[in-house]
Amino acid sequence: MISKQELKLIKSLQSKKHRDDAGLFLVEGEKSLAEVLQSDWEVELVVATTEFIIRYSAFKNKRNSRIIEADRELLRKSGTLSSNDAGIAVVKIPPFQKFTEPSGRLVPAVENLQDPGNLGTLIRIADWYGLNEILLSAGSVDRYNPKVIQASMGSFLRVNVYYADLFQVFSERKIPLTGTFPDGHNIYETALPDHGYILMGNESKGISDRLSDLVDLKLAVPRFGNAESLNVAVAAAVVLDNFKRSEK
Amino acid sequence: MISKQELKLIKSLQSKKHRDDAGLFLVEGEKSLAEVLQSDWEVELVVATTEFIIRYSAFKNKRNSRIIEADRELLRKSGTLSSNDAGIAVVKIPPFQKFTEPSGRLVPAVENLQDPGNLGTLIRIADWYGLNEILLSAGSVDRYNPKVIQASMGSFLRVNVYYADLFQVFSERKIPLTGTFPDGHNIYETALPDHGYILMGNESKGISDRLSDLVDLKLAVPRFGNAESLNVAVAAAVVLDNFKRSEK
Repeated sequence: MISKQELKLIKSLQSKKHRDDAGLFLVEGEKSLAEVLQSDWEVELVVATTEFIIRYSAFKNKRNSRIIEADRELLRKSGTLSSNDAGIAVVKIPPFQKFTEPSGRLVPAVENLQDPGNLGTLIRIADWYGLNEILLSAGSVDRYNPKVIQASMGSFLRVNVYYADLFQVFSERKIPLTGTFPDGHNIYETALPDHGYILMGNESKGISDRLSDLVDLKLAVPRFGNAESLNVAVAAAVVLDNFKRSEK
Repeated sequence: MISKQELKLIKSLQSKKHRDDAGLFLVEGEKSLAEVLQSDWEVELVVATTEFIIRYSAFKNKRNSRIIEADRELLRKSGTLSSNDAGIAVVKIPPFQKFTEPSGRLVPAVENLQDPGNLGTLIRIADWYGLNEILLSAGSVDRYNPKVIQASMGSFLRVNVYYADLFQVFSERKIPLTGTFPDGHNIYETALPDHGYILMGNESKGISDRLSDLVDLKLAVPRFGNAESLNVAVAAAVVLDNFKRSEK
C-alpha cells in the first residue's frame, strides 16, 4: 500500500520548486515508464498497476527501486494524466550539467520557450532526427515538468536539455548560427550548413533583437496560406527536416 | 453583468453533446477572438475584458452579438483556458457540410484522430501550407472542441474539417492516395504527386490494414535517431513541407 507520505511526495513533484528541492521528478504512463525502467536512470519508487508490474516484472531485478501496486483511480488522483493504465515512477534528477560545447553537429536552440507540451514535442523531434541536445535560454520551461516528460514519449532519456545564456554561448561560438525569421531566406532555396546552432523564437514573440544581431544566416519556412505562424515545435521539425535532407 | 444562464451556457459548451444540441461553440483568447470577430461567422455572445472591448471596439458595429464585460477571473472560471486576458465568444456552428470532393489539390486525411491539440495544430499547419480542407474518419475528435479551436490559432476559420467514411471516399477516388508508413519509400528520394489525399495514422496505431490496402504510394519520413515516431501533427507538417517543396 502506498503511504500518505509517498502520495504527498508524488503530488508535490508537480511543482518545480519541490522537484528542485527533492532532486526528483515524475515519469508517467506506460511507454515512458517502460523506457525509464530500461534505462540507467535512477528510479526511487514505482507505483504501478498489477498488470504493469506483471508485464514488466523483468525490470524488477534490474534496480533497487521500491515497487508499490496501485489501481488506476489512485494513479489518476496522484499524477497529472487524465488516465493512466500503467503507473508513475519517481526518478532522480541527474546532476546538473553546464553547457560547454555541442556534442552533436546540429543543435536546436529556443529563446524563452514557455509551453511544456512544446518542449516535450521538441525533445521527441530532436531524438527522431538524431540530435543529442537542445539549448534553451534561462527562464524557459523546466525540462522535468511532467507535461514535458509526457510529450517527449521517452525521448527525454536520450536528448540533453541545457539552460544557458544564449547571448554568451552564441557570442563565443565556433560554429555557424542559423535562425528562423519571417523575412529570412527561403529554406528550400538556400544552401544550409551541415553543422551549427539553429535558433527559433518562442511561441509568441520570435527572436529578440539582441540575439538576432548574432545570427549568421536567417531562414524562413515558406508560407502558402494564411496562418500567421507555425507552432515552435512544428517549425523546428520542418527546419530540421530541411537540414537533414540537404545533408546528402 | 453576465447572467447565471449565460454562464451555464458557456460552461456547457465544453461538452460535445451540448455543442451539438445548442449548435454553438466557444472561441477563447485574444488572437482567436479577434479573428472570429473579423470573420463572417455568426457570433452570438462576447464576454470580454474592458481592455479587449476598447481595443476591439471597431468590431462592435459589425455584428449583432451581445457584448458583456467581465474580469479575468470570471473568464478563467467560465472557460477552458488557464489564463485569458481577452474574452470568450459563443459562436454559431455553421451548417453541416458533407464531403463530396476536394476543393484543393492536397488533402490531408487522418484515421481516428483523437487528441484535440493535435487536430488544432494540424488545422494551423494546413492553413500555413494553403490547404482548404482536412478529412477525418468518423469518430475522430470534434472540430469544435475548445482545445481544437485554441490550438488552431484562428485557422479553424479558413480550413474545413470533414468527417467521412475514409474507406468509401478513397475507394471512389479520382486522385492519388499517398500514405505514411514506417516502412514506406524515403520521402526525400521519391517523386511526389502534386495532388491527392495524404493519409496519416492516428497517434498510437498508425493506418489500419483496410485503408492501407487502398494506398497508391507509401512514404516514410527518414528517421536518424531513436524516437519511435513523430507526433501526428508534426509528421503531417514535415510531409506537407516535402510535398510543397517538390512542387517547383
